[in-house]
Order: sequence, then C-alpha cells, then structure tokens
Amino acid sequence: MSESYPPSERTRLRRLPKRGTYDRAAVHAILDEGFVCHLGFVDEGQVYVVTMGYVRVDDHVYVHASSAGRIARSLSAGLDVCLTVTLIDGLVLARSAFHHSMNYRSVVAFGRARTVEDPAEKVDALRHFTNHIAPGRWDEVRQPTELELKATTVIALRLESVSAKIRSGPPIDDDEDLALPVWAGIVPLSVTRGERIADERR
Amino acid sequence: MSESYPPSERTRLRRLPKRGTYDRAAVHAILDEGFVCHLGFVDEGQVYVVTMGYVRVDDHVYVHASSAGRIARSLSAGLDVCLTVTLIDGLVLARSAFHHSMNYRSVVAFGRARTVEDPAEKVDALRHFTNHIAPGRWDEVRQPTELELKATTVIALRLESVSAKIRSGPPIDDDEDLALPVWAGIVPLSVTRGERIADERR
Repeated sequence: MSESYPPSERTRLRRLPKRGTYDRAAVHAILDEGFVCHLGFVDEGQVYVVTMGYVRVDDHVYVHASSAGRIARSLSAGLDVCLTVTLIDGLVLARSAFHHSMNYRSVVAFGRARTVEDPAEKVDALRHFTNHIAPGRWDEVRQPTELELKATTVIALRLESVSAKIRSGPPIDDDEDLALPVWAGIVPLSVTRGERIADERR
Repeated sequence: MSESYPPSERTRLRRLPKRGTYDRAAVHAILDEGFVCHLGFVDEGQVYVVTMGYVRVDDHVYVHASSAGRIARSLSAGLDVCLTVTLIDGLVLARSAFHHSMNYRSVVAFGRARTVEDPAEKVDALRHFTNHIAPGRWDEVRQPTELELKATTVIALRLESVSAKIRSGPPIDDDEDLALPVWAGIVPLSVTRGERIADERR
C-alpha cells in the first residue's frame, strides 16, 4: 500500500505548501486524535457545514446520523462532501499583528458520501465509533437492537482525495521587529479530560 | 434590539428542537468563547470546508485570509457561506451504544460573504481579531503596514440567519438499561492553555 495519498486538483496545496502533506500516516494520526469533524455538503442549493462525530477505519471515515433527520436524508442521496478535521495546538503571538497565527493540524477530505447498507460493515463502523470515544467500550455496553440500527444511518467517505496541513513552532516575525519590546511566543492549547461525572440514575 | 435572531427555513431546528435556540446572548456567548470556525462554500461546483480564525463584533463575524490565496479570491466574489463554530464540552457515555453522545455548543450561521473594503472597518476588525486571541494585544504589537493590510482580505458575515445548538447533561438511557452493570456518565472535555513558550529569536 502506498505511503501517501495522491494529490489531486482539489487537494493540491496552494498557499504555504510546506505546511501540507499527503502522507498517509500523518493524515491518519490527525484523524485518530480528533473526535469531531465538520462535514460540508450542498442540499437544494444551500451549503451546510454540520458538526459530527466520526471514526477512521483503514481508508474510510465513518459518520452517523439519525435516520429520521435531514442530514441522513441528504447524505443518503450520495452527495459530494468535504470533511474537515481540525486540532488546535496553540496561539502564535508575534511581535506584529500581521504575523499572529495558530498552530494546528488539519485534514481535508473530498469525495462522495456512501450510505453503508451492509449490516456487517455498519455494525463494525459503530463498534469502531464507540471504541474511538472510549477504548474497549463496545464490549461493555448494550449493543444496538435491530430498531436502533434502523434508526441510525452510517455514512462512509473513502479517503483518496485527502491532505493534511500542519503549522507548528514559533511566530515568524520580520527581522526588523525582533527588537520590539513585546512578548512573543506560543500559548499551547490542548483538549483535556476532566474528572468523570457518574450518571446518578439507577 | 431584539433578543433573538429570527428563525428562517435554513435555520429552523428540525431534529431535537429542544437543543436549539435563536437567543442572541446564547449565540454570542458561543461565538465569543471559540477561536476557530469552519466555513463552507462552493467554488466552481466543489464544496469546501476551511478552518479559519474569526471574531464576532456586534452582529458580524469576521474572518481573514491571505489576499493571494484561493479562499480570499473565492469569498471575495460574494459567495453564500455556512459558518459553523463548535465547542466540545464532553463525551457522554451511556449504558447502550445507541445513546452515546457528546456535549457541545455550536452555532451555525448562513449568509453571503462580504469583503470589507472600508479601511476603518477593516482595521477595526483586525484589532478585534487580535484582541480576541489575546486581550489588549493590539495596542502592544506593531500594527499593520499598508502593504500588510493589502495582503490581508477581511470577510464579514452578518448574523441574521443563525441558530445555536446545545447538548448538556447526563446520558439519556432507556429505563430498562439502567440496571446494567456498566459505568455511565460524562467525561468533561475542555480546551486548556499550557505554559507560554517564549520565542527565542532576538
């Protein structure tokens, strides 16, 4: 298997190409760290960007939605989508307003959404989905009934037109600004897990 | 000024309407806590979702991009966009796979992107932008030159077709699952700032 995804017209890295990569491992690492994607599609001429949980399995990303909802209905029609995942790593505070930036890692994938009809693939995707949020959890919880499976639409996007972008490191100030008496550097940002709060219902 | 944004066909809350709100203060609170939006638009028939910093000022959201880039060129044409901001508050671990969820607060705004041509509005937006990342910083750093202002395109989206969605609280398990011997509850997630790292260049 190739170690990189092929560049395409859609994923060609135009601005600041040194920040971009088609490397498969880099793309997968970002997708596996995130929980939430932003999925863009056009329905009846209107562009939508919806927030969805997702999981990567091999060269697919899966999302799911209520079968009764608009998102599932739209995506089931096999729409072209753009799926973006962004991890924010820090604020980059430069000595000039212009060079302020953010450190981030992002993945953008283009393709046609496919509704997962095969029951085995569907359950497998949901298993990965649950375990992505909490490793090993699928085997601990009550698994879906037939009715629950029907109520859930699972959508697959094949990773093929995909790229990652990464900005890291300190601000890139102009040389003539280095002497300015202003603090410059990075404020790291990270997502942290707090103390678990148990549900009190019994 | 009205305390709520008007519902529209685009923002009408279909699924789980109890999670949604048009309340102006709720929309603003979410926008003011976030740093990064996902902006969707269609360019030459292709849907894109791009990650951008943003700031809210009154009833506008501003984003900016390099004037030399594809994003600025596309948005300058006055495209219809969908701007989504998502804050993730926690993982919701239920006793059944089906009822797993996330706690989040999100805002979705629709409208036509407008390039900010007025120099005063442009500088004002950039000032708010910088101060949104680090309060008071605009007055500390070197402000933009004419050339830097030209190199930056500022895009405005008026908040009018906009809604917020909020999920909070414990999992909503089926009554018959409550006796299952499995931990259920919330894993809080939050974005935390780490120790600042000073740039070593002088």
